[in-house]
Amino acid sequence: MSRSAFPRTRGSASSGSIRDPTPIGGACSAVPASGGPVIVVKVGGSAGIDRRAVAQDVSAVAAAGERIVLVHGASAETDVLATTLGHPPRTVVSPSGQQSRRTDRRTLELFAMAALGVETFGYVELLRGSGAPAIGVFGALAGARKNVRAVEAGKVVLLRDDFTGKVERIDVEALRALLDQGKLPVLPPLAVSAEGEGLNVDGDRAAAAVAAALGANALVILTNVPGLLRSVDDPSSLVEAASLDEAEALAQGRMKKKAMAAREAIEAGVRQVIVASGRVDRPLARALAGEGTRILAAATEAGGSRGARPPRALR
Amino acid sequence: MSRSAFPRTRGSASSGSIRDPTPIGGACSAVPASGGPVIVVKVGGSAGIDRRAVAQDVSAVAAAGERIVLVHGASAETDVLATTLGHPPRTVVSPSGQQSRRTDRRTLELFAMAALGVETFGYVELLRGSGAPAIGVFGALAGARKNVRAVEAGKVVLLRDDFTGKVERIDVEALRALLDQGKLPVLPPLAVSAEGEGLNVDGDRAAAAVAAALGANALVILTNVPGLLRSVDDPSSLVEAASLDEAEALAQGRMKKKAMAAREAIEAGVRQVIVASGRVDRPLARALAGEGTRILAAATEAGGSRGARPPRALR
Repeated sequence: MSRSAFPRTRGSASSGSIRDPTPIGGACSAVPASGGPVIVVKVGGSAGIDRRAVAQDVSAVAAAGERIVLVHGASAETDVLATTLGHPPRTVVSPSGQQSRRTDRRTLELFAMAALGVETFGYVELLRGSGAPAIGVFGALAGARKNVRAVEAGKVVLLRDDFTGKVERIDVEALRALLDQGKLPVLPPLAVSAEGEGLNVDGDRAAAAVAAALGANALVILTNVPGLLRSVDDPSSLVEAASLDEAEALAQGRMKKKAMAAREAIEAGVRQVIVASGRVDRPLARALAGEGTRILAAATEAGGSRGARPPRALR
Repeated sequence: MSRSAFPRTRGSASSGSIRDPTPIGGACSAVPASGGPVIVVKVGGSAGIDRRAVAQDVSAVAAAGERIVLVHGASAETDVLATTLGHPPRTVVSPSGQQSRRTDRRTLELFAMAALGVETFGYVELLRGSGAPAIGVFGALAGARKNVRAVEAGKVVLLRDDFTGKVERIDVEALRALLDQGKLPVLPPLAVSAEGEGLNVDGDRAAAAVAAALGANALVILTNVPGLLRSVDDPSSLVEAASLDEAEALAQGRMKKKAMAAREAIEAGVRQVIVASGRVDRPLARALAGEGTRILAAATEAGGSRGARPPRALR
């Protein structure tokens, strides 16, 4: 299963069509200042993500002087593993209609195998292979179980044995110490409760919490669509910039969690959230250079900057 | 598979029959001094290890003021997963007769899932649940591929696609930073090569390398036997103390790697290596209090201290 997600053959060489992004944090310095700003990159766990391209590009942007934390997903790998091992994925629907993974204890174990054992492992390999001092870290997110309410046969029930959680606290000290040493922390979407239970947490919102706790300049969410779309099935309907309110009004399906994550990050002081494609070559450089959707605190900024230069807020 | 290795039901409550170990590092202080001495604990990956007892006891010793790094194995979980997923474990025999796991790329992936996704995950859960600030770290061991030579059909062949490695460098900076924050790093037996390849490394020797790099006071190897035995099938033939030469002369089977690890640790300045049972209640406290086999640099120390008090070298 991981062979397809993390191919060993070298491929997707840099196209060179995107200019190097302007460093956000360290200005012109190639050595990031201790305690300087950070970019948090969230990369989705769906099958379409080009993990090698993401890792190579994150390495390139880090080498240019950015301090980066990578938070990844694990959904597709979990589905494959769960199906193969005879505990197929199940979905719960909340009273408000939100779908999420049913995470009983066995599913949590499979999720951990996919998240830590496939995705964290694979990203650390790929990042190291392209020169970034990546280090996988499990335990930097403290959380609590969510009260998962599900609609079952027309009734709302509270699931008592569910290991879906929410992030409540970030180990800023540990992440800062690693960043100050020039490391690139790679975090799975797993929290730990005070009782020592692993918890399946939403990767977008976990990344938002990390970005907020670290005072990040930007949260970049790389996903399997080009950004926020006015019309879900029409990639040409990309919204280049949106306020939080606009983003929430437009978001459908899984984009709702990203809009929620954007609000949590921005209201905690993160300057901007970029939602962009993780299926292209140089995905992070493209996102930083203006592709995808920028979500900002309030009024939509003037459009037209797409692909031209980093927007003002980034510099 | 992990349900048996990491049971969720609370059990194996502290028997209270062993007195609390004398702190090695921080003398009488409950707060470990920054940069103070460290104990590296290696816990084997075989099925018989009582992981809950190990985690609870490591937590208790850490709470008493010790700075601890835990390195774990992953052999039994890898075997179960590999068999379940249709890529059964294979063994290679070296020209000198040593057996080791054949680690082709797929086996490496399964090994990573078991090591990071089951064992690191499970130990962080159990340690957090008993109050220790555990943090799983992947990427702190840098290594290189071994030239694995195998005897196949009477001929010696060099395996070109094998991901068995040796540890060459420890990220002391990262581990020290985490220890200085009071964290308890948990490390899987996985290294990363300069090319970004994950590598299956021997856990005992990896723990020895960590102990050497951190200038540890002691390396405690918890395994599924009571220690070094004069007669492999007779637990009553336990050797209470041995020099490196004696340990190497007596070691058979998998104990040979432990003797090798002991030499590597002690010759790099680690004061002593203790090989003791990981199948008992309070395994670390027992080991520190005198159970198991102490391996010291030179002449065998006088026996008779077993269970009575920590030997002189520990204080």
